[in-house]
Amino acid sequence: MSFQNLKGTRDLMPSEMEARREVFNRIEKVLRSFGFREIDTPSIEPLDLFKVKSGEEIEEQTYSFEDKSGRDITLIPEQTPSRARIVSNDKSLSKPIKWYSKGKRWRYESPQKGRLREFYQVDIDIFGVESVQADAEILAVAAELMKELDLIDVIEILVNDRNLLEELLNEYGIEDTDPVLNIIDDKEKMSEGEFIDSLVSEGLSDDEAGSIEEVTSINGSISGVLDKVEGIVGDKVEDSLNRLRNLEDALESYGIKDKVVFDLSIVRGLDYYTGLVFEVFDKKGDLRAVCGGGRYDSLIELFDGESTSAVGFAPGDAVLEILMKREGVWPDEEIVTDCYVLPVSESVLDESISIAETIREEDNIVELGYKNRNVSNQLDYADKINAEKTIIVGERDLENDEVTVKDMSSGDEEQVSISKINEFFE
Amino acid sequence: MSFQNLKGTRDLMPSEMEARREVFNRIEKVLRSFGFREIDTPSIEPLDLFKVKSGEEIEEQTYSFEDKSGRDITLIPEQTPSRARIVSNDKSLSKPIKWYSKGKRWRYESPQKGRLREFYQVDIDIFGVESVQADAEILAVAAELMKELDLIDVIEILVNDRNLLEELLNEYGIEDTDPVLNIIDDKEKMSEGEFIDSLVSEGLSDDEAGSIEEVTSINGSISGVLDKVEGIVGDKVEDSLNRLRNLEDALESYGIKDKVVFDLSIVRGLDYYTGLVFEVFDKKGDLRAVCGGGRYDSLIELFDGESTSAVGFAPGDAVLEILMKREGVWPDEEIVTDCYVLPVSESVLDESISIAETIREEDNIVELGYKNRNVSNQLDYADKINAEKTIIVGERDLENDEVTVKDMSSGDEEQVSISKINEFFE
Repeated sequence: MSFQNLKGTRDLMPSEMEARREVFNRIEKVLRSFGFREIDTPSIEPLDLFKVKSGEEIEEQTYSFEDKSGRDITLIPEQTPSRARIVSNDKSLSKPIKWYSKGKRWRYESPQKGRLREFYQVDIDIFGVESVQADAEILAVAAELMKELDLIDVIEILVNDRNLLEELLNEYGIEDTDPVLNIIDDKEKMSEGEFIDSLVSEGLSDDEAGSIEEVTSINGSISGVLDKVEGIVGDKVEDSLNRLRNLEDALESYGIKDKVVFDLSIVRGLDYYTGLVFEVFDKKGDLRAVCGGGRYDSLIELFDGESTSAVGFAPGDAVLEILMKREGVWPDEEIVTDCYVLPVSESVLDESISIAETIREEDNIVELGYKNRNVSNQLDYADKINAEKTIIVGERDLENDEVTVKDMSSGDEEQVSISKINEFFE
Repeated sequence: MSFQNLKGTRDLMPSEMEARREVFNRIEKVLRSFGFREIDTPSIEPLDLFKVKSGEEIEEQTYSFEDKSGRDITLIPEQTPSRARIVSNDKSLSKPIKWYSKGKRWRYESPQKGRLREFYQVDIDIFGVESVQADAEILAVAAELMKELDLIDVIEILVNDRNLLEELLNEYGIEDTDPVLNIIDDKEKMSEGEFIDSLVSEGLSDDEAGSIEEVTSINGSISGVLDKVEGIVGDKVEDSLNRLRNLEDALESYGIKDKVVFDLSIVRGLDYYTGLVFEVFDKKGDLRAVCGGGRYDSLIELFDGESTSAVGFAPGDAVLEILMKREGVWPDEEIVTDCYVLPVSESVLDESISIAETIREEDNIVELGYKNRNVSNQLDYADKINAEKTIIVGERDLENDEVTVKDMSSGDEEQVSISKINEFFE
């Protein structure tokens, strides 16, 4: 029988995998430098864990199924609910909790550009810090990741505050904000006219719709936007305004104030955000968000835990790869081999093993040839695996305890005593 | 709602995760030194992919389910079938192919000591090498892994050859060897009497059963065992005997001849092994095999590919962890933090951010305190995260562009100019 991999999943061959290793190493280095610690949680969890956070519709958007004992199980689309499970069950965990995790996640969605059914994602959360400093730190981490991936010049970080946005909607007479937030969430996909029509069909007057269009078109520096809207909201969300002013100061200290744009149209669909929301966008705007997140201070309570502040985000590899390749900064990793050991004939196989082992002891990558190939085929193969050097082991050389070391880039060959072979591979 | 993780799955907290990182780093270092390249394949695959290799019963032993489009899907229990899919579809891949992959695997089995439903496994295969050198190399890799994990003195590698074993059974008059192989596979769990009774109930005579008991009790050095059995098999499996003699020579060159025990009772259940089979066992014998594998030269043909030799094995983390902990060699990794930056009051927060950023630039792990905790709580926390140094940022010091650097092990404190702070963290 002949098979293909499933739609929306990938085979990653060695050079692709090396590139991805490099990308994730850089991401992990940044996260660890900020004191985030790596955890791991199961890739299969009870479906209800996700329903609590994301509602019944999550079942349709995920790989969810009944196991052989009748349990409803989900392949995790993200790790935050598993963390909420841990944090709510273990009250002894000392705060702040700064966790990251790198792993596969799954979503049952139509595969398209930047959206796969199986992908890698790094989940990043801070639990237990109510202060806006954690918001600033999360944004600083996002910016630092973009720097480390050579993307900082092509992205911007769009931020908003859900409290402020909802209060603005209230001021314009909208009390049931959810349907309007959903329309604002889709604003970037619509023309101005379509946007206003959508709001009107939701029951808003033309004036109300016009005002919403106007206010959600405001963007700029945090203080610039606040200057424009504080006359509208008055002292109703004074806390949020203060947080945002402090956020701007902290972003300035992090040196990333100019990368952050306050944009009143950023919503991030999910209902559970309670303050900051943000998305990292390609400035050219032709891609989905590189990543996004925000603050969700009421999540842990949904899991019967003590009220615990939380802020986080989760970059995935699908959009990152497209953007980095477009910008020419996706790592171009080649397979490397320090040494290929080439046995000329079957009679030198055992001696070739010893030589290979000696060179491996010095932490080198050493491939040993097998007996079923001739010398010229083996040299071609050594080229293919980018061997720096090839050691040719022949019967006559061996009689003098020597081998031939060939430098694969210059082509130079040298007779070397076996006892001195490691001098070439330190 | 309150939740637990699913039976047979694990939450790994940061210190446990650091230990596992260390273990897998050592494993990867060995594999890479032998020229194995990392690949990745999907964690979800068509169920039929596994049925081709392992038969219909694999559905019961795995997490298999129907997706929303009616596809039968399996959470992969191992990666070899996915590799067989790739190798059989892409005839342009140059041989030898030496692949490894580290990832989660899933089996729907009753969780018990050393057996989980979700676990980490490293799959290791060589495709395209018929020579016994690949058998030797795989055994050398297994031994080197055990060395690198400080287990080499407590394990032994039991090897067998399925051709030789089946020929021995033929010589004793057994033609339908599969049921007998299944009984031999369970031999270590039975007394001698039970073993013979099982064979007799399979239709063997008392004499035949006695002979099988006797021959499958033979073990020792490869040449020692061959001396005992070559009189029985004559020249029927001359190829296998020659391979085994060459294998012993190669193992001697690898310096691991004394770690390998030829044991005629090793079967490894699965039907598709075609030559070498082996298992790495704890010498004390109270644990399941640490890992096992062998040669399966007919696998790729099952996937409609060209006939391609294959040999491999796959260590998982469940038994490894139990054994390493029992032997006291499981890594005892602590969370490390180079520096904790402690803001004494809210007015120094922004300056504290700049100081933390400066220290991070030198590749340090730096945690920054949040405003909602007093100095003594923050020092306790700095201890908890094993901070080497704490930088105390206070208002009065800042007026002189200074901070206090506290060495957390000695308790010594020093006033330091901010411009010279990085000298402490190089």
